Amino acid sequence: MDQVLPSARSRGRIVVIGGDGFCGWPTALRLSADGYDVTIVDNLVRRRIDEELGVDSLTPIADLPVRLETWSRLGKPEIGFEEIDVAEDYAALRACLERLRPEAVVHFGEQRSAPYSMRNPTAKRYTVANNIRATHNLLCAIVELGLDPHVVHLGTMGVYGYDGDGLEIPEGYLRVKVANDEGDLFDRSILYPTNPGSVYHLTKSMDQLLFQYYAKNDDLRITDLHQGIVWGTQTDETRLDERLVNRFDYDGDYGTVLNRFLMQSAVGHPLTVHGTGGQTRAFINIADTVNCIALALADPPEAGDPVRIRNQMTETHRVRDLAHLVADKTGAEVALVDNPRNEAAENDLRVSNRSFLDAGLNPITLAEGLLDESISIARKYRDRCDLSRIPATSLWTERQAPGRPEFA
Amino acid sequence: MDQVLPSARSRGRIVVIGGDGFCGWPTALRLSADGYDVTIVDNLVRRRIDEELGVDSLTPIADLPVRLETWSRLGKPEIGFEEIDVAEDYAALRACLERLRPEAVVHFGEQRSAPYSMRNPTAKRYTVANNIRATHNLLCAIVELGLDPHVVHLGTMGVYGYDGDGLEIPEGYLRVKVANDEGDLFDRSILYPTNPGSVYHLTKSMDQLLFQYYAKNDDLRITDLHQGIVWGTQTDETRLDERLVNRFDYDGDYGTVLNRFLMQSAVGHPLTVHGTGGQTRAFINIADTVNCIALALADPPEAGDPVRIRNQMTETHRVRDLAHLVADKTGAEVALVDNPRNEAAENDLRVSNRSFLDAGLNPITLAEGLLDESISIARKYRDRCDLSRIPATSLWTERQAPGRPEFA
Repeated sequence: MDQVLPSARSRGRIVVIGGDGFCGWPTALRLSADGYDVTIVDNLVRRRIDEELGVDSLTPIADLPVRLETWSRLGKPEIGFEEIDVAEDYAALRACLERLRPEAVVHFGEQRSAPYSMRNPTAKRYTVANNIRATHNLLCAIVELGLDPHVVHLGTMGVYGYDGDGLEIPEGYLRVKVANDEGDLFDRSILYPTNPGSVYHLTKSMDQLLFQYYAKNDDLRITDLHQGIVWGTQTDETRLDERLVNRFDYDGDYGTVLNRFLMQSAVGHPLTVHGTGGQTRAFINIADTVNCIALALADPPEAGDPVRIRNQMTETHRVRDLAHLVADKTGAEVALVDNPRNEAAENDLRVSNRSFLDAGLNPITLAEGLLDESISIARKYRDRCDLSRIPATSLWTERQAPGRPEFA
Repeated sequence: MDQVLPSARSRGRIVVIGGDGFCGWPTALRLSADGYDVTIVDNLVRRRIDEELGVDSLTPIADLPVRLETWSRLGKPEIGFEEIDVAEDYAALRACLERLRPEAVVHFGEQRSAPYSMRNPTAKRYTVANNIRATHNLLCAIVELGLDPHVVHLGTMGVYGYDGDGLEIPEGYLRVKVANDEGDLFDRSILYPTNPGSVYHLTKSMDQLLFQYYAKNDDLRITDLHQGIVWGTQTDETRLDERLVNRFDYDGDYGTVLNRFLMQSAVGHPLTVHGTGGQTRAFINIADTVNCIALALADPPEAGDPVRIRNQMTETHRVRDLAHLVADKTGAEVALVDNPRNEAAENDLRVSNRSFLDAGLNPITLAEGLLDESISIARKYRDRCDLSRIPATSLWTERQAPGRPEFA
């Protein structure tokens, strides 16, 4: 993926909304390397939230103009940038889409942290207003302009919920039987009933309804990727130059669980497991996130098709098993702390990810070498770590306040 | 219902959000007459939308202060009024709820016209941003303040969609069977899969997810009323004085179908039936809307219960049958015009409304005398009618533009 393709004929124009973020940045680079003509649309709010929370990426991420200039100096195709708040500035978003007329739009432009979304009323309200309006503005502008891009959206496995009744979670649609008055059963295929576990996950559940409606009423072509928890930092493209390094969040709000464990081990902090650690979750490496988006773009739905929902995850693990995996590799201790989340203490999870496997995805698993890379990144930059930012501080409900986690 | 209860002990404090609107105003009066201590919260936007559209209620509705003063002068309990935009001004909403600490909140505070929601991108975006933020701000403020009111929300039958597969639509939750890998069937009760037919109906589907989440995570007590299409104008309370008269919308955006037919017959205009008129819809008289809300308030769910969903409708009719019913009574002609909506031309509809019937609702049906009252109101005020505002002008998709309905 790291060969230079400056003279390759463009495979099409793509807008990456949220292309400065954790998933968006490596995706933008990968699509550029693959020969797409990429424009990043971002309001850079993720960097401002770092300032609000008093945290910073463990890795020293360069400003976006520096990132883009570095990419160009490596002989790669130029990546455009438009600083637009897609939730707040519909006119600018519309003008951008009208000018670029993209073949595809990859939509990462949403507040993506569950703990941040539960932080306080302001964060809850921001998450709802930002995420819903961002998604709706995009769909509305596409209809208004009469464009026909393939919209690829980053959803989350969390829309399914984690009730763990033992049945495999299908890719978006559930086959059910419904009885009539006489008890005869009829088959129906329905959107999998959502059971979101935070205000953030709730917004992605609501996004699903926006997509379903615009696909039905306006024939928009939409792929919704229900992604697992991402781990890892680097991809083939972000490794090319330190100024291209991807962000690594380790704080209690934005740090995903495995990356938090890796960071904690690097600085000699106990691995903080919420509750019993019996929560089973789905995971994916950041390099596979990028692989999946490339595969999704290569296989768009037709106009008139229902939303194409694909599960973007590669393996499931219990949180406590992950902690012990990291502990075994690094010698770190495991500490059980009160769970700030309102969720089942223990659950099973079985997920279908056939569509990406059938499309040729060759998953990067935890058992392989990239865990070592993540550990070495955590160690390399550990002096940048602010230990006080590791604990989770967002509580799901006031009822949980007495059990607020404490870290000595 | 029209006896004076000035000295009755208050049955509790109720906030009616959207209490100046078509359903909100007669509800506020009824609850006040029933002995509740009522405060209306409204931003009066519905009156501004009239100005934007260049239309006016057929009935000459008084300004809200005049309405409230009239009610007091009849010896009724004072109804409070707070002019707050609950979608835009969270701080004012929170302060109002903190001061009043209501036992119940009836939430009508949403843009409620499907055609208006499809009018143009601005109206689509307003409907989404307004309705979702209004609902979320209310739920968020209740949690922040630690209050425990019963939230009664006006939803719509339209969230179910009108696919007409012949199965009765239950009250909110659908019992389904799901197969495991071996083909064994498991029972589940799920939120009825939504299939909204407009951006407006979409927002009510999204509201359902907000309610589901806040009931689960924060134990909020919520009743969601999936209401049919309302017809009629007056209730026992709005009849008491002409300055209490309810609004009567006959325009292509806000006029509900039966009220439009009644108005058209009164002014000698053909009854404009969209498409074949084979659409079957659920209906309810405005007086039964008010009855149902009173019944819902009397029977709140417990903390920890799932959202209580009740179907607030009393009968189903095909649109063309309604047109012929009105034509037979009034001598009006029936005219089939192109359907501006993107919907099934013909559908069956069977709906359960057991919960209100079991609670004692004695439905007012079309076959009874109130149709005559509506006709007489339409005739009484027909000089206020602007014929040019009768046609529906909002198109559901650009594909429908060539068939734009025309009225000679």
